[in-house]
Amino acid sequence: MLKLDFHPAGRHFLQIPGPSPVPDRILRAMSYPTIDHRGPEFGELGLKVLEGIKQIFKTVHPVVIYPASGTGAWEAALCNTLSSGDEVLMFETGHFATLWQKMALSLGLKPQFIGRPGIEGWRGGVDAQMIEDHLRADGGHRIKAVCVVHNETSTGVTSDIASVRKAIDAAGHPALLLVDTISGLASADYRHDEWGVDVTVSGSQKGLMLPPGISFNALSPKAIEASKSAGLPRSFWAWDEIIEMNKTGYWPYTPNTNLLYGLSEALDMILGEGLDNVFIRHNRLAKACRTAVTAWGLDIQCADPSVYSPVLTGVMTPEGIDADQVRKTIYERFDMSLGTGLGKMKGRMFRIGHLGDCNDLMLMATLTGCEMGLQMAGVKLQSSGVLAAMDYLGGQSVPLRRD
Amino acid sequence: MLKLDFHPAGRHFLQIPGPSPVPDRILRAMSYPTIDHRGPEFGELGLKVLEGIKQIFKTVHPVVIYPASGTGAWEAALCNTLSSGDEVLMFETGHFATLWQKMALSLGLKPQFIGRPGIEGWRGGVDAQMIEDHLRADGGHRIKAVCVVHNETSTGVTSDIASVRKAIDAAGHPALLLVDTISGLASADYRHDEWGVDVTVSGSQKGLMLPPGISFNALSPKAIEASKSAGLPRSFWAWDEIIEMNKTGYWPYTPNTNLLYGLSEALDMILGEGLDNVFIRHNRLAKACRTAVTAWGLDIQCADPSVYSPVLTGVMTPEGIDADQVRKTIYERFDMSLGTGLGKMKGRMFRIGHLGDCNDLMLMATLTGCEMGLQMAGVKLQSSGVLAAMDYLGGQSVPLRRD
Amino acid sequence: MLKLDFHPAGRHFLQIPGPSPVPDRILRAMSYPTIDHRGPEFGELGLKVLEGIKQIFKTVHPVVIYPASGTGAWEAALCNTLSSGDEVLMFETGHFATLWQKMALSLGLKPQFIGRPGIEGWRGGVDAQMIEDHLRADGGHRIKAVCVVHNETSTGVTSDIASVRKAIDAAGHPALLLVDTISGLASADYRHDEWGVDVTVSGSQKGLMLPPGISFNALSPKAIEASKSAGLPRSFWAWDEIIEMNKTGYWPYTPNTNLLYGLSEALDMILGEGLDNVFIRHNRLAKACRTAVTAWGLDIQCADPSVYSPVLTGVMTPEGIDADQVRKTIYERFDMSLGTGLGKMKGRMFRIGHLGDCNDLMLMATLTGCEMGLQMAGVKLQSSGVLAAMDYLGGQSVPLRRD
Amino acid sequence: MLKLDFHPAGRHFLQIPGPSPVPDRILRAMSYPTIDHRGPEFGELGLKVLEGIKQIFKTVHPVVIYPASGTGAWEAALCNTLSSGDEVLMFETGHFATLWQKMALSLGLKPQFIGRPGIEGWRGGVDAQMIEDHLRADGGHRIKAVCVVHNETSTGVTSDIASVRKAIDAAGHPALLLVDTISGLASADYRHDEWGVDVTVSGSQKGLMLPPGISFNALSPKAIEASKSAGLPRSFWAWDEIIEMNKTGYWPYTPNTNLLYGLSEALDMILGEGLDNVFIRHNRLAKACRTAVTAWGLDIQCADPSVYSPVLTGVMTPEGIDADQVRKTIYERFDMSLGTGLGKMKGRMFRIGHLGDCNDLMLMATLTGCEMGLQMAGVKLQSSGVLAAMDYLGGQSVPLRRD
Repeated sequence: MLKLDFHPAGRHFLQIPGPSPVPDRILRAMSYPTIDHRGPEFGELGLKVLEGIKQIFKTVHPVVIYPASGTGAWEAALCNTLSSGDEVLMFETGHFATLWQKMALSLGLKPQFIGRPGIEGWRGGVDAQMIEDHLRADGGHRIKAVCVVHNETSTGVTSDIASVRKAIDAAGHPALLLVDTISGLASADYRHDEWGVDVTVSGSQKGLMLPPGISFNALSPKAIEASKSAGLPRSFWAWDEIIEMNKTGYWPYTPNTNLLYGLSEALDMILGEGLDNVFIRHNRLAKACRTAVTAWGLDIQCADPSVYSPVLTGVMTPEGIDADQVRKTIYERFDMSLGTGLGKMKGRMFRIGHLGDCNDLMLMATLTGCEMGLQMAGVKLQSSGVLAAMDYLGGQSVPLRRD
Repeated sequence: MLKLDFHPAGRHFLQIPGPSPVPDRILRAMSYPTIDHRGPEFGELGLKVLEGIKQIFKTVHPVVIYPASGTGAWEAALCNTLSSGDEVLMFETGHFATLWQKMALSLGLKPQFIGRPGIEGWRGGVDAQMIEDHLRADGGHRIKAVCVVHNETSTGVTSDIASVRKAIDAAGHPALLLVDTISGLASADYRHDEWGVDVTVSGSQKGLMLPPGISFNALSPKAIEASKSAGLPRSFWAWDEIIEMNKTGYWPYTPNTNLLYGLSEALDMILGEGLDNVFIRHNRLAKACRTAVTAWGLDIQCADPSVYSPVLTGVMTPEGIDADQVRKTIYERFDMSLGTGLGKMKGRMFRIGHLGDCNDLMLMATLTGCEMGLQMAGVKLQSSGVLAAMDYLGGQSVPLRRD
Repeated sequence: MLKLDFHPAGRHFLQIPGPSPVPDRILRAMSYPTIDHRGPEFGELGLKVLEGIKQIFKTVHPVVIYPASGTGAWEAALCNTLSSGDEVLMFETGHFATLWQKMALSLGLKPQFIGRPGIEGWRGGVDAQMIEDHLRADGGHRIKAVCVVHNETSTGVTSDIASVRKAIDAAGHPALLLVDTISGLASADYRHDEWGVDVTVSGSQKGLMLPPGISFNALSPKAIEASKSAGLPRSFWAWDEIIEMNKTGYWPYTPNTNLLYGLSEALDMILGEGLDNVFIRHNRLAKACRTAVTAWGLDIQCADPSVYSPVLTGVMTPEGIDADQVRKTIYERFDMSLGTGLGKMKGRMFRIGHLGDCNDLMLMATLTGCEMGLQMAGVKLQSSGVLAAMDYLGGQSVPLRRD
Repeated sequence: MLKLDFHPAGRHFLQIPGPSPVPDRILRAMSYPTIDHRGPEFGELGLKVLEGIKQIFKTVHPVVIYPASGTGAWEAALCNTLSSGDEVLMFETGHFATLWQKMALSLGLKPQFIGRPGIEGWRGGVDAQMIEDHLRADGGHRIKAVCVVHNETSTGVTSDIASVRKAIDAAGHPALLLVDTISGLASADYRHDEWGVDVTVSGSQKGLMLPPGISFNALSPKAIEASKSAGLPRSFWAWDEIIEMNKTGYWPYTPNTNLLYGLSEALDMILGEGLDNVFIRHNRLAKACRTAVTAWGLDIQCADPSVYSPVLTGVMTPEGIDADQVRKTIYERFDMSLGTGLGKMKGRMFRIGHLGDCNDLMLMATLTGCEMGLQMAGVKLQSSGVLAAMDYLGGQSVPLRRD
């Protein structure tokens, strides 16, 4: 019976906050035969994806596509704009902000890592006022860049990037604004140009619905200018040659051809649905998910409703309940993967991804799995989150079941 | 917003009682390059699937595989064993039994179509006593075959085939026993040899998890003997040449190569999970589904619990509710396909498929879609079937939600 | 070394006259998820393929698509138009004409099987004059149908169908004209309406580039009229109900959904290339192939240049050389499948398929494999067919190699 | 007719020296659903590929797999072992050696770029004696690494790596030996441990038959030791954390999951065929290709038979013939991609890839396309290379064609 319970049949539910489920349509596109990356068809493909991805970032400036996963694009953003020993102001919103800061250290930068202390710091977004205060205090403009995470995948918080730009401007500080929206792009609204971002970092395996393996740097003219004098050594990540060759749709070295096929298809899907519709859908599913968590009587990791993430929801487990044990039960009994608590949150929360190629019934399946799993793990639920979510999604109340 | 509601994203839920969702693993197998059906590799494939499919039918005798969909295998069963003008005793369990009887008429046979009258006749299984009575009354043995449907796809009833064989034997009648288990095979237990069936008819797009396009006749020695004198004209469906060539793994004409790749994979999956485990899984999901229907306060189409189908559940809608309108709402709002009411049941019921590559969360998604859709259509539900099904599947009660 | 010689790597060359190599594009289309064959999307698919296939047959009348392989469509053509005991005039062009005649016998028809005697009869096309003579002699109009094969797959002969219609008309005979172009459709020009054909039979696995599994009957109004009084029993093959339901894009029973996806893609490919371009390409490759055979000093099975097939070329081996041994050598050493000699031609010829998704270099690979294989088998070649074919395809002479 | 000549049908021949044609089997494996890279199944996959890839490199030490294309692995090799300002001795074998040297400059290293002058330098392999001489002259051991290319993709030369190690040892020099075998691995014999290489760099899109997107660093204990004090900044490329997490089959950041599925399949294919058989096959095809070039009377770019590449053959065009015009003709008329002349060789040669998933008839198709294309471009050929290659592959002479 245990074996039966670890369902050998049916579809696995991959409800982590990325990689998100890759639609069959994209997997099929990725199976087109690999072509000559120096041949004429490739150039057409290159120009198409380079143009299309700009619409996703909402930019008219170059977007660099790397044949490397997202962490590489973090490094690219830093090494193209900064020099050894440069100070950077980074904001601790969660685990990934922490890892980016760790990378900055490894590369020989000097990060100031600010934020609110303890777990509470991981329950909200970037505090633009704190950034402004720090920049005002930096009269000598030793801080060369402000680095923030737009959608913090470890917590389910989507920070207000426009406010960060306003803070930098208010402080009259020349620092560059570098933003990680690896998990936010194409799920949460993002506006590279309008928000005045200098480098936006993103990846493929989240809202773009691709497997991991390609990543992005969206640039501003100011960032490109900075790259001309930035001193960190770089070659693979260097923007200049890529931007130059991208003009005709090619890359200086071998690109990740089959993932570019997938990107082309993803762009067709997303722009076909309409970016705004994509955001409405994500917001609706996220709201339904939070409705369920609230009905269960559990805390949402993000404590500030103004920055709830449309991508994922962090669910805190009650004292004495190991969130990873809940995840394990759900995995074994219901063949569903949920995100673990990272860093400070290890064992205290799990994360439900509702991004990318997701719809109402996939979310409802997810919530039923969570509800059954929480109960199996001994969590006392205040009420059925599944019923609450159905109320929200279906828009009409269900009479309660008689027992 | 309407367009949004008809979710353009995420996976469609195909919850009709066949075609069932085809697992990616099978779709991949079907994409192997087509090979020479007279070459050496083909023979190995042929022998493998011909041997494996016997295990699914639980027979040691030949199983004929047709490159044609299931309706063709119905015709094959009749035209290989019978002659023009022959009487056949057929039992009305629902729409598909009715269609088979109609086919018998078209082929020049004389069916006696017995059963219980009206809708009630479509809410139970085959009545073996009625069959025995008819056979006893046929002193001249003009009835050459008894034809029954094992799993009636239009109603969700799985008849007791062993009892039909007993009835025939009890009447001391020489009629052949022909059984349609197109939608039952590999989901409901089936025993061709043990139950004394002469010809079993089945198809690919149900429990075998394949697309439609191949179909089966499992034979008994008595059926093969009958085919030698059967007078109905036949060529494509003729067993003799196929059985002969199948000995080396080939077919007399071009087989459906890529679906045979799929069949090979399906056999690996089913026999890998274990036929008994497959049946336990289907029974468990069917029980959960019926638990939901009962909690809703709706009638299950099958009125006899001893013959509930593990493959599908027929749900009767209350007076004044058009079941097809409910289906339409669910399709448009939740991107899920359910089965329509067929023949006598048009507009009065819908059918939930839970067969093949299905698991707990896929079923729960289905039930949430049904529950929301029923309410949108104005059906008053007694209680939440979703909660009831979670109780059953999760094995533990959820406290009710506070409103 | 033997194992190495049976190349474990690289692409197999499937150069039999069908199934032809299935393009990846079609395999991908066939991997779309199976949908509800009663749902709204299906109807659109159905209407599209039903309309598109008419363009391939060059008809404005209904084309019936069967979820069954080509042999079934032969049976359908006969049983929808004829009655038990009807006489049919069939012309022996080769093995498949012989098999169709055998089927007619099995179905209780009375075929007159005419043709030229011996192997010579298999080296040319249909002799319209012989048909006219037979029809003139049939004053009582007992012959109800004339059955001929357009492209005889066993020999590589493409008969002149228009001449057969002229012969029937010249004889003033009311017999129906039934034509098998299973291997000719979409490779050789074919004109159902213009040529006055009553039923055209075809299949999927040749010029349409699909795996086997669906087949066709293109009809004339006269054939439809005949079907109303035809006496042969039929149900699965019956046109009437299919034609009726096809009006909205559906089928009376479960169609072969995933092969219809493939058909939809194949129609896009063929009509996108342009039917005339498809024919030009086939003729060009066929000519190159025959040029090679002639250079080798071997006989082309088709002895009449006016009916050379654009689909395949039959190559006769010299006295004392077993053609199947040549094929075996080529298969084992060069991983290429060629067609065997069938019936009367067993061991005396092999068949090279150059149909469907074929191009210059695929054909050249094929010819190099044949040339090497023939030499290994001890055949004395007059000259290099490969050079001759390159001359033809490349349009310029290559100086001979110094030895 | 021009449009026809740019064949719209049939398979494209991708005969560049990488990316090589990706077998369907690998494309299918890459279409498995993306899974949680922190879940239990992933760890099993990770351990399998990490273990398997060691067999390909013939090493017992760690092999780092990067989710980035090959150029990144070049950077990884340098930045993990060296410090800013370090001298490295690099050998100019061709375009890729030149690019690696350019990268070293970008990263702040000081390359000594030695080699034979002019085009002649690009027609042979690494001269171990020159390396030994340079190292002997470097009494202060300022040279920290010797960097050579094993299989120079731009020329078709496979250098003797063992001799380079011997040279270093003979000079008693402590420099590390870094080797690029991006295009050699799994096609040409390679022995990381036996040859005493410290870091071997490779990629996925050549002998491993995968699309581009993952790349490799195989390490020696000495290289790992060097990485502890190497001063170049690095994070994404840093070995230490990857090696640590790889112990359980995971990566510190998101790996390229679907390409790892492909790698797993590629390992099964290569180790299933047997590495030695893979090498024999490549050598045989390369020999056949060179036989053709010689018969044409054209020069092979590699002028030293002892270092002919089994991966690709560079073909020099006669004075006055633009090699890229020949390539264009072949591309447009025969739908085949060949490699262009790079750097110094631009327009003077083209490259024929015969690596990865290649077999006799694929090569023969390639050679027929080349022969026809060369003639169309006005190149006077001495004799037919196609005939010569068939002689070699088929092992028997073909009588010449009569004209």
